[in-house]
Amino acid sequence: MTAQLARSGRGRRPADEVRRDALDAAARLLLEQGVAGVTYDRVAASSTVSRTTLYKWWPSAAALAAEAFFTASEPELELVDTGDVRADLRAQLGAFADLMLRSPAGPALRGLIAAAQSDDAVLAALQEHYVRPRRRIGGAALERAQQRGQLAAGVDVQVVVDQIWGACYYRLLTEPDTVTTGYLDALVSQALRGAR
Amino acid sequence: MTAQLARSGRGRRPADEVRRDALDAAARLLLEQGVAGVTYDRVAASSTVSRTTLYKWWPSAAALAAEAFFTASEPELELVDTGDVRADLRAQLGAFADLMLRSPAGPALRGLIAAAQSDDAVLAALQEHYVRPRRRIGGAALERAQQRGQLAAGVDVQVVVDQIWGACYYRLLTEPDTVTTGYLDALVSQALRGAR
Repeated sequence: MTAQLARSGRGRRPADEVRRDALDAAARLLLEQGVAGVTYDRVAASSTVSRTTLYKWWPSAAALAAEAFFTASEPELELVDTGDVRADLRAQLGAFADLMLRSPAGPALRGLIAAAQSDDAVLAALQEHYVRPRRRIGGAALERAQQRGQLAAGVDVQVVVDQIWGACYYRLLTEPDTVTTGYLDALVSQALRGAR
Repeated sequence: MTAQLARSGRGRRPADEVRRDALDAAARLLLEQGVAGVTYDRVAASSTVSRTTLYKWWPSAAALAAEAFFTASEPELELVDTGDVRADLRAQLGAFADLMLRSPAGPALRGLIAAAQSDDAVLAALQEHYVRPRRRIGGAALERAQQRGQLAAGVDVQVVVDQIWGACYYRLLTEPDTVTTGYLDALVSQALRGAR
């Protein structure tokens, strides 16, 4: 950090660091208070980032909340590529279910999805900063498997994304108690069999 | 109806008819005002059913709203069994997507699911009166297909339910614009291929 400060030359922090500070503060507020707790004022008050900067970088507080969630959950939701697509998907799906069922991230994301149902700005923010970036990560992993011949060439990988994560989301939103390890096994197996 | 009144012997309406009256009123309120609009008071005021009766039959206003939604949407969501499981699923899924995207039932159900994310009573009501009854209908159709040999014997039909309707719900909740006829075709095809 000292090196970065020195590099900036005028004592101003690099943009990346300021962004990370704002996103960290937004993630803390989101996990503690839900999406309604993420406002420009509160993020400014609990970070070193000014409201002017927040306004400049995020078109809405919901966009800040959605991007904060994506950034904060990215390490846990990493999709490692070992070449064994079934094992890799199953491992990631297990981590995803754990995050949703056994951490404050679960209520936070459920709250974001809920808020998106009656607020188009939240829906747009959620799509842009969380749903589509996660879709791209899942789709890229499935495309690599497709190139290795583990999935049929003609299969739409985004449909497979829905049949793994979308199906899991549906249970997490409507019957969370039924998301068991056996369920996750069956989900991955049947989705991959359907895509072969 | 006259015959039923005569049969009841004391001028009291048959229970089925009273239930239907309450559910009709609750469905109207739900479609017009969302789940928050369905209260015992308003259902009593816009039907011929007393609050005492409503309290007796439904443990919460959310239970009344969820059952009202199930009952009101049942005709549109009928799953006809012609013996061609792919065509039958595709037809029902098309009707479901139409209902969600092009009728007041869409915002109403999205609102119910949203409310369930922060209110356990709404979640329980939604599970009991809508999610599980719809699951049973989808599962029964898939089991008949399984008995005809169209699905493998070992397949968990409830996982297939998630991979068709759950996947579709995920898009309807997060990226409704992407629910196209081509998407629904691919969803049914890949889910059935995975279950063969």
